[in-house]
Amino acid sequence: SRSRCSSAREARCQRPHDSEVALAGGTLSDRCLHPPRIVDTMQVTSSVPRKKTRQISVGDVKVGGDAPITIQSMTITKTADVEGTLQQIYALAAAGADIVRCTCNEIEAAEGLAQIVPRSPVPIIADIHHQYKMAMAAMEAGVDGLRLNPGNIRKPEHIKIVAAEAKDRNLPIRIGVNAGSLDPKLYEKYGGATPEAMVESAMTEIAYFDEVGFDLIKISVKASSVPLMVDAYRMLSEVTDHPLHLGVTEAGPPPAGLIKATAGIATLLLEGIGDTIRYSLTADPVQEAKAGRQLLEALGLRERKNIDLIACPSCGRAEVDVIKVANEAMEAFGERKLPLQVAVMGCVVNGPGEARDADIGIAAGNKRGHLFIKGQNVAVVPEDEMVDQLVEWAEFINEHGIDAALERADLDKARREAEKDRAKLLEEQGDDANAAGEKIVEIRRKA
Amino acid sequence: SRSRCSSAREARCQRPHDSEVALAGGTLSDRCLHPPRIVDTMQVTSSVPRKKTRQISVGDVKVGGDAPITIQSMTITKTADVEGTLQQIYALAAAGADIVRCTCNEIEAAEGLAQIVPRSPVPIIADIHHQYKMAMAAMEAGVDGLRLNPGNIRKPEHIKIVAAEAKDRNLPIRIGVNAGSLDPKLYEKYGGATPEAMVESAMTEIAYFDEVGFDLIKISVKASSVPLMVDAYRMLSEVTDHPLHLGVTEAGPPPAGLIKATAGIATLLLEGIGDTIRYSLTADPVQEAKAGRQLLEALGLRERKNIDLIACPSCGRAEVDVIKVANEAMEAFGERKLPLQVAVMGCVVNGPGEARDADIGIAAGNKRGHLFIKGQNVAVVPEDEMVDQLVEWAEFINEHGIDAALERADLDKARREAEKDRAKLLEEQGDDANAAGEKIVEIRRKA
Repeated sequence: SRSRCSSAREARCQRPHDSEVALAGGTLSDRCLHPPRIVDTMQVTSSVPRKKTRQISVGDVKVGGDAPITIQSMTITKTADVEGTLQQIYALAAAGADIVRCTCNEIEAAEGLAQIVPRSPVPIIADIHHQYKMAMAAMEAGVDGLRLNPGNIRKPEHIKIVAAEAKDRNLPIRIGVNAGSLDPKLYEKYGGATPEAMVESAMTEIAYFDEVGFDLIKISVKASSVPLMVDAYRMLSEVTDHPLHLGVTEAGPPPAGLIKATAGIATLLLEGIGDTIRYSLTADPVQEAKAGRQLLEALGLRERKNIDLIACPSCGRAEVDVIKVANEAMEAFGERKLPLQVAVMGCVVNGPGEARDADIGIAAGNKRGHLFIKGQNVAVVPEDEMVDQLVEWAEFINEHGIDAALERADLDKARREAEKDRAKLLEEQGDDANAAGEKIVEIRRKA
Repeated sequence: SRSRCSSAREARCQRPHDSEVALAGGTLSDRCLHPPRIVDTMQVTSSVPRKKTRQISVGDVKVGGDAPITIQSMTITKTADVEGTLQQIYALAAAGADIVRCTCNEIEAAEGLAQIVPRSPVPIIADIHHQYKMAMAAMEAGVDGLRLNPGNIRKPEHIKIVAAEAKDRNLPIRIGVNAGSLDPKLYEKYGGATPEAMVESAMTEIAYFDEVGFDLIKISVKASSVPLMVDAYRMLSEVTDHPLHLGVTEAGPPPAGLIKATAGIATLLLEGIGDTIRYSLTADPVQEAKAGRQLLEALGLRERKNIDLIACPSCGRAEVDVIKVANEAMEAFGERKLPLQVAVMGCVVNGPGEARDADIGIAAGNKRGHLFIKGQNVAVVPEDEMVDQLVEWAEFINEHGIDAALERADLDKARREAEKDRAKLLEEQGDDANAAGEKIVEIRRKA
């Protein structure tokens, strides 16, 4: 079994693996506990290639082309409230937002933007609905881009004035089509807010922009219906190479809102569609930014910056309250930015093996916590200390690396202690420790 | 504009629409407030057809073929705890689970199943990991199906004994491949838990089943990595027509767990892949069942049985704390099973129009709540009564239908009152009510 053992610290060992021990009905001592060589599944990205789009710049943030997919959110303060809005922008940036949008619905908002933009840590986009002059005011205030709703600003001359000004200033515009506020003419033509109607709305706007030679464009075709928005983006992606901004509009509060938004955005991303995303949740927008970050990290589309906690969903086999421990761990990690995959497993028999891809993990059994790093036991600690120890070792890994953490551990001792607990549990739940065959008769009797 | 007005209760009116009034810079009186004729976007399902699979039965629940996509969850009680497990099964069924799985890891669990199955409101599947005799005991206990992990039960003779027994009893088996507990031989062959390795594990198990003529099969190829599981299912779906059970394993606690699970499951469903689903959350499993239900309803894959709350994500334009109102509404609707789409909008100017597809909604403005049904104002009430009124009208619609609700309303009065508030707000935020053009100079000075 040399070929399965991936120990880097000692010569590949000859000891049998768990599986072989189990199959042979043998004892647990002297097994190989080194992880097998594996493909790092954390690095997997889906096999569908990302659709090639043009690249634009929103301030210093690139969108489209080979730029990383970016996360957007929107402030819910009155934009005229400069300090309150900036506070929210800083919180959004800290939570992972690359770009923040603020409404510019009245002149006081534009005045606010003039003070907000120079102090913002991220590029600011002004959201414009009904008044094209608000777009002009926002540009004058120094914003890094605009979002126009083509359903709400429909006079070609107004659209062209805005686009010409954006061209002069080298500012991008998002064409933000929304199923709920589509141009009434398109409703009529298509008998409703169909994917075709939404795509036509976007293409018409592009044509107006083209007349004044403006092409710093990204496009969204959002709807509150997930299947509608998915189909609209799929169709749009076929007919344009402008970068696309993905979102499910009016998704509502979590958890249902989170489910709807994720369903729409993730489906498109995993088909290679989309260059920037926004979760529209009826919640503190910081939750939007966090969700965006979590999704992109989970899909392997952005470099990991935060803990990825994997945890078994608990079951009747668990030796500990996994839900409680997982939540304690999430709380203990809090806002620490550790780019590690952390596993919380309910059972020392299966846990470390199932989570062998994780950078670090704990499994519970026999009232003790087994700490493991890349599948190797590094310590066995009392159950009530295991979350603290997990955080401590994770911080160590983050600072010094996996190899240093393995050097620091007393691996032999940890292995011996871990085997003791596993042996005890396997004794109780072994290959047929409870003589299941004989008891089938008993079940038949009771049923 | 006759063609855009869809009033069914009076002759189509000749009054101009909002948009035309706005474009003309005109007053707000005497506008058509009837919704335009529209396609009901709630009924949209994605354009990718569902992949055709064979159909099997789990108890009386059909899986695969043209059967509705079903929702599964798993108890986290000790299965030997009959009353506790049944309590959880009932809670899961009430939350939307069609099928529930219980671990059968020891003989006491099998004994528990013998008492649980006859009293369960939904079919019960026994989860089997290491001991094939537990599968035999579970079948003897009367379960409606099995889940076998081919990575943990690997002796062909054991697998075939189980399959032959399942064949005699006409019971389905899920081949539950898991990236974390793949057969070590496959890890070695593929250099890790690749999609190919996972698919081969499933196909090998099918081959063993085939040797004894057993084909009541569904299959899962779960991983905690979303891109890995998506690719594994895509590949599996190409090579088999057995029904597929979708899931992201060890997704962890919400919200991140919810994001990972939704990303994987929704992506596949919207590609037409998948016949039954499970959210694996580190949380009360009732949350798993609810999430499954919410996802399928949002994708139009199951008939709506619960409120679909759409709500704007709030913004600097909102006239009310939308987050607070939306959460109050969610709480007020509570566990009422009303199959309606309900909108909570922050602004009376855009809200009723943007949410005109919703069965019922409220928009806030000028310290009052505007209740609307399919886009038509039906009442204007004080802000602090609007959530109660929303629930009351929703209950009425649920019992008597939309038409009866419109008959009951004093539409003319509601329209007049609503127009008053909108006029007041549009006066403040009109086409260029604040002389934005002039103030651009002022912004330039401040910036």
